[in-house]
Amino acid sequence: MRAEIVSIGTELLVGSTINTNAAYLSARLADLGIDVYRHTVVGDNVDRIVLAFEEAAMRSELVLCTGGLGPTEDDVTAEAAARFVREPLVMHRASERHIERALKARGLRMTKLIRRQCFVPRGAVVLRNLRGTAAGWLVRTPGGSRLMALPGPPRELKSMMDDAAIPALTKHMHLAPACLVRRSVRLAGLIEVQVAAKVHDLLKLRPPVTVGIYAKAGEVELKIMAKASSEKKASEAADRIERTIRRRFGDRVYGTDSDTIGAAAGKRLAGLGKTLAVAESCTGGALANLFTDVPGSSEWFKGGIVSYVAGTKEALLGVQLGKRDPVSGAVAVELARAARERFQSDFGIGVTGNAGPGKDKGSREPVGIVFIAVADARGVRTKKSRFAGTRAEIKARAAREAANLIRTQAR
Amino acid sequence: MRAEIVSIGTELLVGSTINTNAAYLSARLADLGIDVYRHTVVGDNVDRIVLAFEEAAMRSELVLCTGGLGPTEDDVTAEAAARFVREPLVMHRASERHIERALKARGLRMTKLIRRQCFVPRGAVVLRNLRGTAAGWLVRTPGGSRLMALPGPPRELKSMMDDAAIPALTKHMHLAPACLVRRSVRLAGLIEVQVAAKVHDLLKLRPPVTVGIYAKAGEVELKIMAKASSEKKASEAADRIERTIRRRFGDRVYGTDSDTIGAAAGKRLAGLGKTLAVAESCTGGALANLFTDVPGSSEWFKGGIVSYVAGTKEALLGVQLGKRDPVSGAVAVELARAARERFQSDFGIGVTGNAGPGKDKGSREPVGIVFIAVADARGVRTKKSRFAGTRAEIKARAAREAANLIRTQAR
Repeated sequence: MRAEIVSIGTELLVGSTINTNAAYLSARLADLGIDVYRHTVVGDNVDRIVLAFEEAAMRSELVLCTGGLGPTEDDVTAEAAARFVREPLVMHRASERHIERALKARGLRMTKLIRRQCFVPRGAVVLRNLRGTAAGWLVRTPGGSRLMALPGPPRELKSMMDDAAIPALTKHMHLAPACLVRRSVRLAGLIEVQVAAKVHDLLKLRPPVTVGIYAKAGEVELKIMAKASSEKKASEAADRIERTIRRRFGDRVYGTDSDTIGAAAGKRLAGLGKTLAVAESCTGGALANLFTDVPGSSEWFKGGIVSYVAGTKEALLGVQLGKRDPVSGAVAVELARAARERFQSDFGIGVTGNAGPGKDKGSREPVGIVFIAVADARGVRTKKSRFAGTRAEIKARAAREAANLIRTQAR
Repeated sequence: MRAEIVSIGTELLVGSTINTNAAYLSARLADLGIDVYRHTVVGDNVDRIVLAFEEAAMRSELVLCTGGLGPTEDDVTAEAAARFVREPLVMHRASERHIERALKARGLRMTKLIRRQCFVPRGAVVLRNLRGTAAGWLVRTPGGSRLMALPGPPRELKSMMDDAAIPALTKHMHLAPACLVRRSVRLAGLIEVQVAAKVHDLLKLRPPVTVGIYAKAGEVELKIMAKASSEKKASEAADRIERTIRRRFGDRVYGTDSDTIGAAAGKRLAGLGKTLAVAESCTGGALANLFTDVPGSSEWFKGGIVSYVAGTKEALLGVQLGKRDPVSGAVAVELARAARERFQSDFGIGVTGNAGPGKDKGSREPVGIVFIAVADARGVRTKKSRFAGTRAEIKARAAREAANLIRTQAR
């Protein structure tokens, strides 16, 4: 089945409210196996609302509208709906009693404006609002599709969707219950185009199983959505795609869903029963911060030193720069060794680089160049990277890269 | 003038992404005096996009679309636009060079997929993307209205709107130059309701001058918007409101616009010609990270030690816990003193607390309790706070509070 969402409210069109309801309803409809074809936002104007209803009902079997059901004169959704379905508005007595009770509890009395919320198009199935006063409803349109109206306040909308709207849709629109499984597969150390090039075929998949690609600072995520007639079947379909992705990307996959790269590195260390310490120059605490964001990180993260000026590199870490470039592999190696030694940890990470925005006085390396070294009992390995972005983004990307080295190389 | 926003992306229709771009663009268009008449969201499908463009262009003079400009095969906005305006797609050489440079910096080469982003409808004015690779553009439609395309990632979209789109709209659509001044006044150490109680009257102001209140982890922001017939008059109106706010809040105001609490603390230290070092337990690097996000922080920030386990507190900082609660004012004091001594800095900050999610094994203090100590040549002062939120939020709030202590108390 195909649905559209029509959101009503001038506050959305002037940008003072973000349309979170449309995203919420879309996800809930997807869970029911209903495809959402279009979202439309119109202002509080009867003509424009009627037009939006007409257009949507020509394309889709279900038009779900939100907003404009309240007590103020701006709220004209019921009036527009009545004109669209060519039925008069009639008073719904049970809604009136519900509002009277709610008012009485607060010591207030019914007014003409408040009573406006009890009028619904004749023939509508009324949906109870347990969190507010405006009633919702489901009504048949002249073309044979259905129009459902829900209140705009997200709290009321969400409660009514679960308590009343979904049961009404299931009953009146004969929905086959469908199960939807969503899963994110998280990749490290690759940029979006590199990932896209390897999953061309998956990105073209059409329902019941689809794969989307999303990128943000230093990581790429592949989102699997699988629909099936049972939870088990949907889960199995998602498992199959996840296995395909893992086969293609190997250990670039660091986790799924809410996993973080810091937690993945920590899991590796905890599995080995080993500990880690860091000595950071350009990341300036971002790396320690990433690890300590993980609950229980004190089991494997012993601590770190942020050595931001040359003098402290010497005094605290025993790293003598001499005439060397402070942004260099050799300095990263010494930082990694010093971290390991000072904290008596199994692994030590050293990071040095230039996070910008300007060129570093004492260094020849340009903005974005970062050297990361990982030391353990067997020796030290270094990696040179170049990251793009603002100062804070370069720091974050370098920290993620360092965590990824521990995740993939610690043994 | 009337405009519509067409957002393109299946991720919006399945509810996995909230359409924040539409709200952002609506607010920016409102600033320019342009009325937004409708928002539409369609999936990544050429036919549906063309239809949405046609419908919008019949109603409105400007159609602003976002998304679908990237390198993957799902990205079909340029193709749909070319069909709609009946012009072929042509290669834009300057965009190609821009992408080649960006790729080269990361050691990557141009591919056929990446090059797709350089194709624009013939006759389009190309808008440069300073934050990404996909170009935007402005093109005339067959009916005489205009279609503007901007990339979907919010970072790129916002940057392009200010840098290129608004100047292009002003030039090609003969907009009266809008004189709107926006200014944020940033407050530290207060929560939203405390601020709201003191600016009730300002929050009720109506255009041409309005004030809004916004809160996020550890800070509250008052946003002034002033419209006038000239830049100078709008600026003066904003100045008057800013002075009123500063009079009411005194040194709780730490800065305006893009100022950060870390930069405000750094400015104070730089003004005094003094330096700072930190010893962090529960913030785990978040405090050092906050300071090192400030460009040029090496002038006043000497470094930090993240001491996450009891043993390192002793070995690296000489802080012996003995039978004391590790989450206590006394331990914070010793951490602050040790930081100052080890880094030979004028000021030392020590932070200890419980960031959660669980109760700390060795401590009696509940989740959210944080002790912050600031040491200088005259002595040490400590502050006990209780912060709410997730583990990462408690760390961030504690770090901001510590920076605020330096800003207000360093002398």
